[in-house]
Amino acid sequence: MDTLAVNQAIAALRQQGHPLVAGADMGERHSVDFTAENALRPEAVLRPGTAREVSEILKTCNDLGQPVVVQGGMTGLAGGATPRAGELALSMERLNGIEELDEAAMTITALAGTPLQVLQEAAEQAGLLLPLDYGARGSCHIGGAIATNAGGNQVIRFGMTRNLVLGLEAVLADGTVISSMNKMLKNNAGYDLKQLFIGTEGTLGVVTRCVLRLLPRLASTCTALCAVESFPQAVKLLRALQSRLGGSVSAFEAMWADYFDRIIGHSDALRSPFAQSFPVYALVEAEGADQQADAERFEAALGQALESGVIADAAIAQSVGDRQTFWAIRDGVAEITADLTPYASLDVSMDIAEMAGFLDEFDRELKKALPDAINLVFGHIGDNNLHLFVSTRREGDLKTIFDIGYRLTGAHRGSVSAEHGIGVLKRGYLHYSRSPEELALMRRLKDALDPKGILNPGRVIP
Amino acid sequence: MDTLAVNQAIAALRQQGHPLVAGADMGERHSVDFTAENALRPEAVLRPGTAREVSEILKTCNDLGQPVVVQGGMTGLAGGATPRAGELALSMERLNGIEELDEAAMTITALAGTPLQVLQEAAEQAGLLLPLDYGARGSCHIGGAIATNAGGNQVIRFGMTRNLVLGLEAVLADGTVISSMNKMLKNNAGYDLKQLFIGTEGTLGVVTRCVLRLLPRLASTCTALCAVESFPQAVKLLRALQSRLGGSVSAFEAMWADYFDRIIGHSDALRSPFAQSFPVYALVEAEGADQQADAERFEAALGQALESGVIADAAIAQSVGDRQTFWAIRDGVAEITADLTPYASLDVSMDIAEMAGFLDEFDRELKKALPDAINLVFGHIGDNNLHLFVSTRREGDLKTIFDIGYRLTGAHRGSVSAEHGIGVLKRGYLHYSRSPEELALMRRLKDALDPKGILNPGRVIP
Repeated sequence: MDTLAVNQAIAALRQQGHPLVAGADMGERHSVDFTAENALRPEAVLRPGTAREVSEILKTCNDLGQPVVVQGGMTGLAGGATPRAGELALSMERLNGIEELDEAAMTITALAGTPLQVLQEAAEQAGLLLPLDYGARGSCHIGGAIATNAGGNQVIRFGMTRNLVLGLEAVLADGTVISSMNKMLKNNAGYDLKQLFIGTEGTLGVVTRCVLRLLPRLASTCTALCAVESFPQAVKLLRALQSRLGGSVSAFEAMWADYFDRIIGHSDALRSPFAQSFPVYALVEAEGADQQADAERFEAALGQALESGVIADAAIAQSVGDRQTFWAIRDGVAEITADLTPYASLDVSMDIAEMAGFLDEFDRELKKALPDAINLVFGHIGDNNLHLFVSTRREGDLKTIFDIGYRLTGAHRGSVSAEHGIGVLKRGYLHYSRSPEELALMRRLKDALDPKGILNPGRVIP
Repeated sequence: MDTLAVNQAIAALRQQGHPLVAGADMGERHSVDFTAENALRPEAVLRPGTAREVSEILKTCNDLGQPVVVQGGMTGLAGGATPRAGELALSMERLNGIEELDEAAMTITALAGTPLQVLQEAAEQAGLLLPLDYGARGSCHIGGAIATNAGGNQVIRFGMTRNLVLGLEAVLADGTVISSMNKMLKNNAGYDLKQLFIGTEGTLGVVTRCVLRLLPRLASTCTALCAVESFPQAVKLLRALQSRLGGSVSAFEAMWADYFDRIIGHSDALRSPFAQSFPVYALVEAEGADQQADAERFEAALGQALESGVIADAAIAQSVGDRQTFWAIRDGVAEITADLTPYASLDVSMDIAEMAGFLDEFDRELKKALPDAINLVFGHIGDNNLHLFVSTRREGDLKTIFDIGYRLTGAHRGSVSAEHGIGVLKRGYLHYSRSPEELALMRRLKDALDPKGILNPGRVIP
């Protein structure tokens, strides 16, 4: 991208009346996503306030072959929103707000730049539930969650973001506005076009508005921290609870001892409820409609797991405070990053049956290549998702860690991205999880929808 | 399509060793789907036994520009599998069988031509549940269910077929085999290509294999038939039960009096549990893990609905026989078709808030145009889905009925196909539900994946 061409695009957009900020006035917040890798200021930032403005901007950029990087809350973990050389940034932050909460239809309609937490709170105030949640809730945009098909803690029961999107409005590279703002659960009138924009990380179109499905708020929550002697026992526990609790299990978070002990050791406020250490822990949550009856059933199910030897011990949350403590252990990874920077964060998925073998091999290869490496493992195992937090505190080792982790993920027929997406950082590893025919078809779609390659170029597709 | 070209394709396929049946030897089962409209024998029928054979056949047809109609169980209701002039039929019936039931992963892997019921029964034998069910279960193919994104009776809790498909193998028009046989709940490794083949009715590729998600079998089932004084009361009942029963409501089927009374009147075996007639009835089902506790909760929720005046009366199934009777009323539409042939069957969806207005207007316009028309209404209202069974017993009136119904559906911002698909029969009405930009994007996808237009041509896209 030569400077002349960028200047031409900037001049054209200014002439059309699109406010445009460039240089130091942008600050640094448009330069890099949550990974903090490869920071680079965009050539300029545009902040459209309507889908029509997004359309005009993209049409102009498309006519001039000007590449654009789409930016939401900048909480991505794959480098997808970090600018590359010569790009204009299209920030969605002014496309912010709830347009409608329809209690009868149980839907919420919002602009793409609305933070997830704002939607969660609006649903709660209406006595409803938006069952999508993860750590970045306060700063991520719902448009970004849709573009990355975000996962989180409740996928086992409610599915990924994809399952909650009923309607979508998106703008194609050439400026065409595709409005499919459907509110119905059933709609088979032709191709379900919104699927093109969910999980494609802004490479096929820019999400501008959405309709999400809400569910009745669940009045009861039962939470427990369980200690198990091995990973297979954790899987047995998961299946036993799913079977006995009638589909009400809404979270099942496994934590291996290295992870658990380090989090507990790091914080004075956190304490293990158990007198001894165990190889694996599982944070279990079930949600239903009747606190007392559900609590009795939950306790009985855990009691049976204890009697039958599936679990070694269990602590049931007796208060909101207990529940918060258990979740603080699970979410504690954010607290220890400072000590272990730079670190490699892997977000992989595979069949549950492959996990133990994968973890063994990874540990072995890692220790061989980097004897002092720390490897903390946790994950949503009911969703097939493992997170590995690996550090030697040396920048130069990161590539070695990723290379080993993704190669072994491929060897176990797993996915190099369970929920964080591919972006730029995992593009080179995508071939471990997708066949040449699949990659060619992705390219064919990209060429059909964005023939000039102006939308988030270089992301996702190798 | 001229005969010469068809003969060339047939000769080429024969030469490659693909068995091919033509003429009277085919019988009539490849001539028309369940609608029985526009029956036409294909030029010949091919019955591949592997994805590789499907690939070879399609590659040859694509090279020669020979159009192909894909056929599953022929239970479709939109004319999509009915041959058009000059087409070869590609029947999936030999691609039949379960390849794996993975109890640990809770998945089932099967070939596209496997009947739904075979999969349901295999899941049940393993103590698991495939939560997809509708009347054609015994004869429809799972590949067809995926290609039409079939709905059915449990969508309110478990979603459409799309939500259950974890992995897919499909063959493109040019013979490329796209294998995305994923078993994981979370997998964001690049574009989710399987979405291209779900609900696109065989126009973008031919589904050959799939991995479906299974759930823990639910041990308890509570069923009731409720009588309500009006449609808004039925909606209130739905929301009250969803809220009080903690997400366990798995079916909510509304039946209007005309429908209910005709079904009861038609069959000696069926009887209303109520002493008088009511404007609307709702068949309600909830499933959980504990029969006694769930039954108490279910009864309490209905008791409260009765006390608060939301329902006028309710009959709770006390036995498997009661449950079967209630469902026989709901499914009784199949029993009365013979009396009312020819009839128009509409499968539309819209916001619940629009339904009462739509039904009023439809009734008014229908009576004006066709004073003797019978209009029987029922549907999965929790999924926004209404079925209208309309008859004057005159073939010549069908178009009038469809024209009125779909025009009013469009006026109420609804979908001309909730779950049956568009096929050929609803193609001309698609514009009521989709914008010109959406239709153009569908066409762009079709051109990108099937540039010669050999796959199910003339289906879905106007």
